[in-house]
Amino acid sequence: MNEKPVRVGLVGFGTVGSGVARLFLENGDSIRARTGVNLELACVVDLDTTSPRSILLPEGLLTDDLSRLLNDNSIPIAIELIGGTTAAKEVQHKMLQAGKHVVTANKALLAEHGPELFVAARAVGKCIAFEASCAGGIPIISAIRSGLVANNISALYGILNGTCNYILSNMTARNEDFQTALDQAKEKGYAEADPTLDINGSDTAHKLAILGSLAFGYEIPYDAIYVEGIEQISVDDIRCGLEMGYVIKLLAIGVKEDHKISLRVHPCFIHEDSLLAQVNGPFNAISIFGHAVGNTIYYGRGAGMMPTASAVVADVVEIVLGNSLKIFNNLALRPVEQARDAIEDIGNIISRFYIRVMAKDQPGVVATYGKILGDHNISISGALQHEGKGPYNTVPVIITTHPTRQANMTAALEALQRTDVVSGEPVCIRIMDIPEDQD
Amino acid sequence: MNEKPVRVGLVGFGTVGSGVARLFLENGDSIRARTGVNLELACVVDLDTTSPRSILLPEGLLTDDLSRLLNDNSIPIAIELIGGTTAAKEVQHKMLQAGKHVVTANKALLAEHGPELFVAARAVGKCIAFEASCAGGIPIISAIRSGLVANNISALYGILNGTCNYILSNMTARNEDFQTALDQAKEKGYAEADPTLDINGSDTAHKLAILGSLAFGYEIPYDAIYVEGIEQISVDDIRCGLEMGYVIKLLAIGVKEDHKISLRVHPCFIHEDSLLAQVNGPFNAISIFGHAVGNTIYYGRGAGMMPTASAVVADVVEIVLGNSLKIFNNLALRPVEQARDAIEDIGNIISRFYIRVMAKDQPGVVATYGKILGDHNISISGALQHEGKGPYNTVPVIITTHPTRQANMTAALEALQRTDVVSGEPVCIRIMDIPEDQD
Repeated sequence: MNEKPVRVGLVGFGTVGSGVARLFLENGDSIRARTGVNLELACVVDLDTTSPRSILLPEGLLTDDLSRLLNDNSIPIAIELIGGTTAAKEVQHKMLQAGKHVVTANKALLAEHGPELFVAARAVGKCIAFEASCAGGIPIISAIRSGLVANNISALYGILNGTCNYILSNMTARNEDFQTALDQAKEKGYAEADPTLDINGSDTAHKLAILGSLAFGYEIPYDAIYVEGIEQISVDDIRCGLEMGYVIKLLAIGVKEDHKISLRVHPCFIHEDSLLAQVNGPFNAISIFGHAVGNTIYYGRGAGMMPTASAVVADVVEIVLGNSLKIFNNLALRPVEQARDAIEDIGNIISRFYIRVMAKDQPGVVATYGKILGDHNISISGALQHEGKGPYNTVPVIITTHPTRQANMTAALEALQRTDVVSGEPVCIRIMDIPEDQD
Repeated sequence: MNEKPVRVGLVGFGTVGSGVARLFLENGDSIRARTGVNLELACVVDLDTTSPRSILLPEGLLTDDLSRLLNDNSIPIAIELIGGTTAAKEVQHKMLQAGKHVVTANKALLAEHGPELFVAARAVGKCIAFEASCAGGIPIISAIRSGLVANNISALYGILNGTCNYILSNMTARNEDFQTALDQAKEKGYAEADPTLDINGSDTAHKLAILGSLAFGYEIPYDAIYVEGIEQISVDDIRCGLEMGYVIKLLAIGVKEDHKISLRVHPCFIHEDSLLAQVNGPFNAISIFGHAVGNTIYYGRGAGMMPTASAVVADVVEIVLGNSLKIFNNLALRPVEQARDAIEDIGNIISRFYIRVMAKDQPGVVATYGKILGDHNISISGALQHEGKGPYNTVPVIITTHPTRQANMTAALEALQRTDVVSGEPVCIRIMDIPEDQD
């Protein structure tokens, strides 16, 4: 047993920080019994030292003075849970310069400045551990880096944002419109007061940058990921999708094919029978395809106080056991420039599509619609048109397509809008046929 | 980079052994690039050195002489893939005595002789790594030991045998009887020529002994696990269950409550909407409840050449990185005697039940049936009786119950059989309401 306590400093005493403090204080003994690792919470740094938190710290632990952590050489590990990319970056640099390993849940910072921070960590022989940055308490980073280490990973599909999944699940189950579902998510604590980064897909893209880097072996530049959010999703399309056997999800998609990698975040229809379609509410799930293991899926809470804290503490234990530094040192990612070359342009990706146009209920509409698609080499796989209330109204006409190049679809939609048979902007949602790992 | 090759010996050149050899030979470079670990397949030992395998070994690697591996001090890691509990046990002891770390997929051996082997390994300062012993390529052991280390685990529910799940899935989807589904499983390679250990639940219980040990912290004696197989499951009950909203699965169940642990393997009806109900064919899935993380689920192929090989190679890498030995040394399980005290007697477990009796279609049947259940303090939650073809036939009468002590149910079934209103033996299948990790 490693009986000597390992002192750990925590910066950021918000929701997740409180959860981490709780696990240190309440589960220290059981962690020690199971792993031999004896953890001690040495100090908690936060600018706000007065607001009540959900956990009572022992006297003298809470401080607003970061230097107390930085200058204390008896603290080898520091946890950054401030969030954001400005102050947090400075704090992580200071932690590293002070010779401390860093544990963080900060996906935005890693996605946007990971390579810079990794260089800084290596320069001082320390590591940055970030299991908590993706999918909360699900040990997905460890799975990719250790459990699936013998695999060439060809694809990952992730529901990585609990806010979006909660909103889309409620829109689907209860026929609520986007705003109502968003308000409900805020009320339940699943959406922040300003939910922009969640609903516009940025948060999911941050996580995809991190998971994609590990899965495909490149320093993936966050700005190279194609991103669409869920703000435009309407209940009408969700209902039409259901009628055709599809459920809507905001997916992070990473697919490697012939040395090209497609990385994108957007709402998709997936088949209602697929396992990811069953993932509802604030839960996350990630499907990973390895050449040896086939399809593995990891499911759980992707956010929240205790699930995220669970991952933070697991990282601390791994650092004490010496595993994290070795894995971190051996993490050999190809540089950003090579990643930019490898990432497929969104125009070149092949996808199936769901298109809804508001067609004028008049002769010649189908012919015009069909001709434009045909001219762009787009083959129709399904169609749905409910009878309208009589001629000269507009009726929704839905078409699903066979696999089609994105650029062709974009051009076809522009051509459609130039005709006089449709009104308003066509709705276009990609259909993702997640490959089946067949018997 | 750790450039010096680490030499690894393999004993057992069957299906999984061939997969392991393939990963060493074909993925060595990518493993090295990602982890810095440079693996070399030093020798492959098998009594059969002539049959063709799916992978061609370099000249001179294959031998029938175990001592070539044992006596070679340049080989620090040995993989045992013989299977069974007799020769394999001897081989693992020899490997340890020769000063080698052991990697194995042998769940039967670990479940039945794990504590003895662990003592032997610790005596020589080596470790036994066994990620491949449970759920094939799914990194479930690593998840429990590392990813969820900050959690008190309260329950696990696992579909851990691909053969049984394949059979039950086909019986459900295609209305096939047990024998037809079993034959189909053999044809597809999902069942062995002698499938006894799979279909009688033993294989699942072996895995539960291992996973339960890690989750609950006891050396769990395999013989203390209550086990029922799937041999008696009829298509009629599967169909009636479906009508009531349930899907049948062979589950490994481990639940800790008030210092008592319930450990059992038996077929259960689970609600059709639960995620585990969607796990079909030869796939495995394990749901684990941690106090911090909530419910996490892990899904993938639980057997087969490459998925199992994927886990074996991951273990080898972890050993080289030094992680496995530390975790192994710190694995502090309470001894078997304490486990026996903690394990709840099957008579005391509380469950819901599905009961089908062939009732004589005559006056007074329902009264008799109802009285016996009531007398045993069993409360009915649902009932299903299709109209019969006229009086004096027998008709199936199905009752589902509210939570009931197993011992009461057993007594009630005995009492029922003693009456003259039912014919044949009642069918009794437990209903497992897997707790929802609610919003």
